[in-house]
Amino acid sequence: MMKKIMNAPENYVTEMLEGIYTAHADMVAFTGDDLHCYVSKVKKAGKVGLATGGGSGHLPLFLGYVGEGMLDGCTIGDVFQSPSPEQMYNVTKEIDSGSGVLYIYGNYNGDIFNFDMAAEMADFEDGIEVKSVVAGDDVATEKPASPDEKNKRRGVAGIFFVYKCAGAAADAMLNLDEVKRVADKAAANVRTMGVALTPCIVPRVGKAGFTIEENQMEIGMGIHGETGFRRGPLEPADVIVDELLEKILADIPYVKGNEVAVLVNGLGATPLDEQYIVVRRVNARLKAAGISVHRYYVGEYATALEMAGFSISLLKLDEELKKYIDGPVNTPFFKQF
Amino acid sequence: MMKKIMNAPENYVTEMLEGIYTAHADMVAFTGDDLHCYVSKVKKAGKVGLATGGGSGHLPLFLGYVGEGMLDGCTIGDVFQSPSPEQMYNVTKEIDSGSGVLYIYGNYNGDIFNFDMAAEMADFEDGIEVKSVVAGDDVATEKPASPDEKNKRRGVAGIFFVYKCAGAAADAMLNLDEVKRVADKAAANVRTMGVALTPCIVPRVGKAGFTIEENQMEIGMGIHGETGFRRGPLEPADVIVDELLEKILADIPYVKGNEVAVLVNGLGATPLDEQYIVVRRVNARLKAAGISVHRYYVGEYATALEMAGFSISLLKLDEELKKYIDGPVNTPFFKQF
Repeated sequence: MMKKIMNAPENYVTEMLEGIYTAHADMVAFTGDDLHCYVSKVKKAGKVGLATGGGSGHLPLFLGYVGEGMLDGCTIGDVFQSPSPEQMYNVTKEIDSGSGVLYIYGNYNGDIFNFDMAAEMADFEDGIEVKSVVAGDDVATEKPASPDEKNKRRGVAGIFFVYKCAGAAADAMLNLDEVKRVADKAAANVRTMGVALTPCIVPRVGKAGFTIEENQMEIGMGIHGETGFRRGPLEPADVIVDELLEKILADIPYVKGNEVAVLVNGLGATPLDEQYIVVRRVNARLKAAGISVHRYYVGEYATALEMAGFSISLLKLDEELKKYIDGPVNTPFFKQF
Repeated sequence: MMKKIMNAPENYVTEMLEGIYTAHADMVAFTGDDLHCYVSKVKKAGKVGLATGGGSGHLPLFLGYVGEGMLDGCTIGDVFQSPSPEQMYNVTKEIDSGSGVLYIYGNYNGDIFNFDMAAEMADFEDGIEVKSVVAGDDVATEKPASPDEKNKRRGVAGIFFVYKCAGAAADAMLNLDEVKRVADKAAANVRTMGVALTPCIVPRVGKAGFTIEENQMEIGMGIHGETGFRRGPLEPADVIVDELLEKILADIPYVKGNEVAVLVNGLGATPLDEQYIVVRRVNARLKAAGISVHRYYVGEYATALEMAGFSISLLKLDEELKKYIDGPVNTPFFKQF
């Protein structure tokens, strides 16, 4: 049954947004009289604008990565729903400073359709050049048969690394083509896989759309509860980590001496303690494989409401991506010195 | 039933600690060959040392506040268990740089007993001057009859504000008596009250020690599941916030024009979305009361494993506390520019 701290379910997202604008009034604002059109108050003249968007229910994804060193704007939909083209268009106009705008978002049909339309509106109405990078990092979903084939994979927590690298590249005043190249490179080198222990409940729906039996887990479940790779008995943390890492590492070529950035991400209800138990095993396995970790990120970066579980994302690094991973960030939800 | 990402329950804390030292090796280390003795790698010569300690299961409390601008060390017990006097003594020796050490910890009998003993050991063996501030901020527990009476209240999330103010005061190179005065002032001006929607499970125990019925909540439950102020049907967010705030504001004198820092804290399983719905109502109520908010903190600051629920803490500010609240912090778990 649903136990949430909320008022009327239909106000869940707008009241959440009011709280965010209240708490972080010094850093973020909305544009076009629409709470769903979220932009950074920090503007850097001539910088390529970066925007994302997607459904609510994943905090700090998506809006949490808007701020200095990362993104400039975000369009927010209802829980697990895509925002509208008009909303993304409003954000686009607000964040363009003449150097064009790059959209970075997860691989979901609704988002692709809506953001493509927003890009056309911005071009047609205002002559703003918009390019897009669609992140699809979930190795639990079908691998494209060749690099030329369209990526049908779901976008999950690994999009954080695409934001991070593209944000630092834009902050370094690279042009639109170059920022897109960096974002594409990060997207091509990030892989994620997760495990869910419990379902989550969309506020307007009021009950879970699926169940995960007691003592069961689902490997590879998506962040909206999409069917995963396999379901089975809950196993010890180390066994789960080994299965996830094996799939992640097998998906792109790794050799001894490679460097990675690691994100261990809690899906909502899993304590930070457990996420660090995961870190311990990830580190041991990567060390055994001769892969060194340049930087760890641990905590809730992309959630699915109150779902219990976690995901692991690896970003394979070269010198350029390493430099962009290390750049400083200051948003209300994520800070890096 | 217990659904946790872990290996053997008896290794829950040590494996979590190994993960933390792995992920944050640049910033923290353990001392005395004991993972439970956690210290910052940043040392500032001549600064008063600040230490805390307590049971595991509350991340980022307690160790998460060790770092530049806050604490120097932390002693970590098993889940919901006090660490030993010897462990706190080891941390004390490591962090003293000749200016003495201040202990700041929550009001629990085991911690008081053990940390008093550690203070005696440090004085007797090494001549280190140790003073203590015991935080008891939970207004769901009995109010002391007079300011002179010993505070019997539980320490909960509000201790974050005591760490923050004392940390900034020590960083400003105030002496031990002065840092203690600032910590005492913060502790005297912070009040917290929370609500729990679900119980939590201690890993070694394997099942919840209590239940909260479907559609019920417990106002004022402690962060180890201690009995709260009242139990009743789950109400809308605004109604819960109003009840908590009324109790908090009635506990110390507030007048129009007062300023506060606000902490809205998730207890573990409650999504960040819901915490911001709380912020919205807190802000409206404080505005109506003529109280202005200097700064908001929102997120998981003091948890109870996977308990669902949240707490509100208010710190009543004067110019001195405001200055210390604003000081920069850099720990692996909490950063403020």
